[in-house]
Amino acid sequence: MSKIKYDFGSGRSDPSTFPVESLKKAAVKAIENEATFLTEYPGNLGHEGMRIAMAQRESQREGVEVDPNHLLLTNGSMQGVTLSAETLQEAHGDPILIEEFSYPGTLSAYRNLKFDMQGIELDESGMRPDKVEEALERGKRENRLPKFIYTISTYQNPTGFVMPKSRRLELIDLGKKYGVPIIEDNCYADVHYEGPLEPALYALDDDPNIIYLCSLSKILAPGFRLGYIYSKPPMLERLLARRSDAGSNSLAAAITAEFYKDGIGGHAKVANPVLHEKRDLTLSSLEENLGEICVWSQPVGGLFIWVRIPEDVDRAKLWSSSREEGVAYLPGQSFHYARKDVAYLRLAFGHLTPDQISEGIPVLARCLNAARTSNESRQFESLF
Amino acid sequence: MSKIKYDFGSGRSDPSTFPVESLKKAAVKAIENEATFLTEYPGNLGHEGMRIAMAQRESQREGVEVDPNHLLLTNGSMQGVTLSAETLQEAHGDPILIEEFSYPGTLSAYRNLKFDMQGIELDESGMRPDKVEEALERGKRENRLPKFIYTISTYQNPTGFVMPKSRRLELIDLGKKYGVPIIEDNCYADVHYEGPLEPALYALDDDPNIIYLCSLSKILAPGFRLGYIYSKPPMLERLLARRSDAGSNSLAAAITAEFYKDGIGGHAKVANPVLHEKRDLTLSSLEENLGEICVWSQPVGGLFIWVRIPEDVDRAKLWSSSREEGVAYLPGQSFHYARKDVAYLRLAFGHLTPDQISEGIPVLARCLNAARTSNESRQFESLF
Repeated sequence: MSKIKYDFGSGRSDPSTFPVESLKKAAVKAIENEATFLTEYPGNLGHEGMRIAMAQRESQREGVEVDPNHLLLTNGSMQGVTLSAETLQEAHGDPILIEEFSYPGTLSAYRNLKFDMQGIELDESGMRPDKVEEALERGKRENRLPKFIYTISTYQNPTGFVMPKSRRLELIDLGKKYGVPIIEDNCYADVHYEGPLEPALYALDDDPNIIYLCSLSKILAPGFRLGYIYSKPPMLERLLARRSDAGSNSLAAAITAEFYKDGIGGHAKVANPVLHEKRDLTLSSLEENLGEICVWSQPVGGLFIWVRIPEDVDRAKLWSSSREEGVAYLPGQSFHYARKDVAYLRLAFGHLTPDQISEGIPVLARCLNAARTSNESRQFESLF
Repeated sequence: MSKIKYDFGSGRSDPSTFPVESLKKAAVKAIENEATFLTEYPGNLGHEGMRIAMAQRESQREGVEVDPNHLLLTNGSMQGVTLSAETLQEAHGDPILIEEFSYPGTLSAYRNLKFDMQGIELDESGMRPDKVEEALERGKRENRLPKFIYTISTYQNPTGFVMPKSRRLELIDLGKKYGVPIIEDNCYADVHYEGPLEPALYALDDDPNIIYLCSLSKILAPGFRLGYIYSKPPMLERLLARRSDAGSNSLAAAITAEFYKDGIGGHAKVANPVLHEKRDLTLSSLEENLGEICVWSQPVGGLFIWVRIPEDVDRAKLWSSSREEGVAYLPGQSFHYARKDVAYLRLAFGHLTPDQISEGIPVLARCLNAARTSNESRQFESLF
């Protein structure tokens, strides 16, 4: 196999805007000031300064009060995904609701935890509430209510869509009506390019059955493995009781808190425009090279573009020839809750250079055209 | 409640030897050199430099080859505890074998995972192989073999005992005879004060059913949340497949790898003598203040002393009066696999100052004497 030159596979932040000098200074200061704290166990909530910084981040974006004592720091948002699921799980085989296409990390974690995942259809406004209600009603009838609903409501991964406020309210009402908690994964938060922001579910309702997950992986760096859960009592106590990892990394938290001591805005103002340009470049390269046979999302935030490809593409051939040509992407199947091999692929653009994007997309297009088994023109106009 | 002035409760490293200046330098270098890696996901094994440093640590202590590609970095050794258990678990209620007294973090994790813990009696050489064999034989007869044996064979927590080599070999043989994996938790490794070292189980046998857990919490700092699993294929692949946390903290790993680039010996030579002195001081304070009514372990490594107290001590009263007087400790019950309220307590001495130790033990002794319900002299001569 050739070396991967154009890695559209992995959703990472932009390395050119990684703030090396500021982080070096922050590290020196944090290690100096927090020496004693570093020789202690972090506790179940974790480094206070980091929780205060993240509560401010939330508060500024959502316009509501966020109590730092209701935030618990986690090892990336992935620990939030598993800890919240473990807390709500009663037995192997418990049913849960999840967007039909979702983040492979979450899918893998839920498979490992032996949940019975029920996929909810998506449209361009995210998870469909009518389908959620159908599933909840069926669960109620069969005395087998889902343990929770997991949703990436903003810059949904992989589709990139944002759920409008009205639908968020519907979802919250459904959760309350059936007594089913909602896990809201907002790990792309603050990677925003244009247009209005939709509020987080927790900002619309005080229901403690809303568990909110967030991350630093996309606005700073995935290697820091910093995320958090925001949850109100009594759910908070349940999460803390289920936690048995002796706490999350204080060194990374202390350094990051110091780095963000004036808020997250400064770095976001540098990083987001660079990502925005790469999104635009990816979109225009797609238009130029695949506009006649594919359709794709136009995400207003996040790091991914979801591409619908013709059904007549030999997907195994596309995969192997792309790898041969040095192009990586993630196939639609990786995102399907039941691993269905669907005619989609996801392109991540965050960490590639502009040159890699403008060179890589034509290579992918060539492989895609070569993997077609017919010459028909496009048979669909929308993503779903 | 009064403020805790003498915290013998929590097992932490010594703050006075925390290497602030060296870590500041290491942080600056690591952030500079590893900027690109930090913007990537760490991968399932984690930061290569850190794995190489830890493979060398193991290799030097144990005198065997350790492949850095068979090490996976974890969030402290606690993630090793849960990940290995989750990997070997088939169903809730699965039986496992564990030392009758063990680390509360592990007990809590196993309770959360709904294991049926079967406690194995200890003596001054650790877990008793005759009792292990009895339990395995019973499991075999009932077609309900334990999924694994968990042991802290070196500086056992809380008892401080070290399992001799002959018993380690017996345990390995039993694991093989019954096909039951052994999880060896060596999280106090390298906190060694005197006498010969006993080999790790993995150094005695290549059996891939031996899963080894280790940590940096005791030789460097718990706030770094760095640990690792050393495991040979095919067990390694099973652990990696079960992992779904998107990897462990690269920032802490990169800084620590840089700090330890010349081996772990330099810092251990500074930190261990300080801990050694505090152990001696705690032992002599105990002798002076409680020598007539208690017995305790004389650990050759680790951070804990296990104290057997008279049965006639009102343990609830001891707990509350000690807290009133500013003394914290962990009661025996915290360590019992089935939460039995036993007449023991554990004293941690790692992070207290010498003054806190020599002032605190007499306070504890006063509370203990005041909580006695008789004036009988000591009724026992040994810890068990």
